[in-house]
Amino acid sequence: MSSSGQSEVKAVRQRVELRDVTLRDGLQLVSEFLPTERKLAVLRGLVDCNFTEIELTSFVPPRVIPQFADAADVVHAADVPPSVCLSVLVPNLKGAKLALEAGVGKINFVLSASEAHNLANVQKTTDQSLADFQAIATEMRAHGRDIHLSAGIATSFGCTIQGPVAEERVVEIAAQLVEAGAQEILLADTVGYGNPVQVNRLAGRVADVVGDVPLVGHFHDTRGLGLANIVAALDAGIGKLDVALGGLGGCPFAPGASGNVNAEDCIFMLESMGHPTGIDLKHLADVRKQLELWLPQERFTGSISRAGLPKTFQAA
Amino acid sequence: MSSSGQSEVKAVRQRVELRDVTLRDGLQLVSEFLPTERKLAVLRGLVDCNFTEIELTSFVPPRVIPQFADAADVVHAADVPPSVCLSVLVPNLKGAKLALEAGVGKINFVLSASEAHNLANVQKTTDQSLADFQAIATEMRAHGRDIHLSAGIATSFGCTIQGPVAEERVVEIAAQLVEAGAQEILLADTVGYGNPVQVNRLAGRVADVVGDVPLVGHFHDTRGLGLANIVAALDAGIGKLDVALGGLGGCPFAPGASGNVNAEDCIFMLESMGHPTGIDLKHLADVRKQLELWLPQERFTGSISRAGLPKTFQAA
Repeated sequence: MSSSGQSEVKAVRQRVELRDVTLRDGLQLVSEFLPTERKLAVLRGLVDCNFTEIELTSFVPPRVIPQFADAADVVHAADVPPSVCLSVLVPNLKGAKLALEAGVGKINFVLSASEAHNLANVQKTTDQSLADFQAIATEMRAHGRDIHLSAGIATSFGCTIQGPVAEERVVEIAAQLVEAGAQEILLADTVGYGNPVQVNRLAGRVADVVGDVPLVGHFHDTRGLGLANIVAALDAGIGKLDVALGGLGGCPFAPGASGNVNAEDCIFMLESMGHPTGIDLKHLADVRKQLELWLPQERFTGSISRAGLPKTFQAA
Repeated sequence: MSSSGQSEVKAVRQRVELRDVTLRDGLQLVSEFLPTERKLAVLRGLVDCNFTEIELTSFVPPRVIPQFADAADVVHAADVPPSVCLSVLVPNLKGAKLALEAGVGKINFVLSASEAHNLANVQKTTDQSLADFQAIATEMRAHGRDIHLSAGIATSFGCTIQGPVAEERVVEIAAQLVEAGAQEILLADTVGYGNPVQVNRLAGRVADVVGDVPLVGHFHDTRGLGLANIVAALDAGIGKLDVALGGLGGCPFAPGASGNVNAEDCIFMLESMGHPTGIDLKHLADVRKQLELWLPQERFTGSISRAGLPKTFQAA
């Protein structure tokens, strides 16, 4: 890090792109169904905050996650400016086909580097899910439309079911996903097991095998290291991150999984460090407040929402 | 950071020394008086956890902070192995004299780089407090006993009263404290305003002027950046950190100040990163639990206490 003055430091620091995952990962563990109209209101709020990508929903069987029973309705009703990329999560080929039918512009496939978690999540081995991804990529190409295809590797930093996940395996999966056509690779700390040294090292190793394909960091703050891990990921060259309002989130098939990195705190940190995010923090606080009123049973986290911004705060 | 395997990384990572400040900073905002016997029980618990330095109390006027009315009693009754350094905080010459009389082995003087905070805290300008420190150092030398003299700079990263604090001023104060005889310099983010870029830069600038005098980092997690700031401080060469059980803490004369960095989470992070701390995390959880029962009105924080250690956790 530079020892020069703060304004100079800010001038050279890179923009960090943030994807909001509130409506997908953020709602996964929420048992109460958030009505479609309210999901769309949150979407509009996020667009007004200037998010350039929003993960909108998940194409999973409604019996598995009832919260996303309205996935197609949400996609059909979503009305955003062309500058905003709406993406959806799919765990398999069937989900990808449904997403295609609904007319999405970006698909976020996810598999798990942990065999045990992948089996719990989609009843397939990781290799079977890799084959699924190849089939999805083929389907996309056949489809003709210009659809962006992203691939995420869950439990990249360890798993609450099986414990350790070999870094070699994560690197190998990343390389195979890129070879199969992934246009973006996401490294996910699904259960908050990662630490800054590990994140920096693994992100660097994966960067070495993915060529020009951009990396996304997806961190959970389950054990308090979310923001420290983000700094380590930035140091390794990751330039895009997932966040969720109020730190909502968690995977129903990863025992003990909890909140995503809190959007408000993450944006405060990045802007303070001199990384422009483009997000309107003041408006974001309003969107959070509204969602908090709609989900009174949920645990919303966040330091900025409690303590406020420093007097010294300046957006980058 | 190295791209080699984790065990190799761990082999070369430095030990980080932790000072527990639960009984001082941790109790400052606690309005209910914790009886002396219970303070001593916490001390014994911390010693059993292997802390090598424990900040025991504060020699301030009891009308200002009634919690420390028993400061001399606590020092007299404290019975620890010779390997454990007990230190006390003093804000002025009078406090230092009382601490000397009580027979402490280490004095932690503190002043504030923010004029406004220093005036609120001790009704003196920062320069008047610097003069106080020179008088304390003279008194120590006259006293003859080998007493370790540490000096802390509060609000080094900004102030809730005055806002910005010039980095040049912090650097200048650090140099003057060292010249006057400080054997340790502590940089404190009293109100949780610091961010990792700022912490790394200022710690580096201060390191440049203090020569061989070791630096200590004292971070508050008021705005969620405590652990990220610690990683940045380590990168700048800081090798000693303050922590408090359950993230207790805050300064009564710094509006909005809240919890210190949580001891359990910090130790989890450091050990995971390969930095040995020597602290027994399991026993620490018991000491925390006991204190939580004794202070039912207080807000104890912490992710590890809620989510538990990862299955993959290995102490360094």
